[in-house]
Amino acid sequence: MTETPLPEPALTEIRLAAVLHALADPVRLRIAAELAERSHEMACQAFALPVTKSTSTHHFKVLREAGVIRQHRRGTARMSCLRTEELERLFPGLLTSVLGAYRTERTAAGPVAEPAVGSMA
Amino acid sequence: MTETPLPEPALTEIRLAAVLHALADPVRLRIAAELAERSHEMACQAFALPVTKSTSTHHFKVLREAGVIRQHRRGTARMSCLRTEELERLFPGLLTSVLGAYRTERTAAGPVAEPAVGSMA
Repeated sequence: MTETPLPEPALTEIRLAAVLHALADPVRLRIAAELAERSHEMACQAFALPVTKSTSTHHFKVLREAGVIRQHRRGTARMSCLRTEELERLFPGLLTSVLGAYRTERTAAGPVAEPAVGSMA
Repeated sequence: MTETPLPEPALTEIRLAAVLHALADPVRLRIAAELAERSHEMACQAFALPVTKSTSTHHFKVLREAGVIRQHRRGTARMSCLRTEELERLFPGLLTSVLGAYRTERTAAGPVAEPAVGSMA
């Protein structure tokens, strides 16, 4: 099956403010955390996000254009993965601490605060 | 001289997305980095920021309302400091990695990319 990469910034084009902006949203934080936990690429439709499909597509685009995730089309699916190693090289510890903070906050909020990503609800 | 604290979120009210949003701006990153380097409170007017006074006031307000900085009025001055210890307790390593990333990016951009904070230019 042909794979078509979607446009993304080169490593030298990634800006801290854009990365922070991309992560400064509960839905996008959730996407990044889920990708980090799975540690392999996922289809956008595999995320059960509490938003419409077009809003979801927008969130993935913001993450990709900031350099946080990489995406490619595989047939009709759009696959995503975190640019973990590149971001670590560029901004050591940043993604780890943001995702750690996200998990801390979710734990503090309790398990019923929002449905788990990937649930079939 | 009387000191009047300005409104701020309690530790339990601080949200990760709001902190990241507050830091997702070059001017606000610069304010946070400068406060971190000085490690004591500073008057807003001590920052030579490349923005108008009202924009500057807005940036400090966004940082304060997100819980990143604490501010109080002292006479006619508005003093600011980072909420370093509280943020570290809430989101360990987050502020350190963001400010480290900011310094890395500034160093890569070179010394002429923007005037130094605090310069009299």
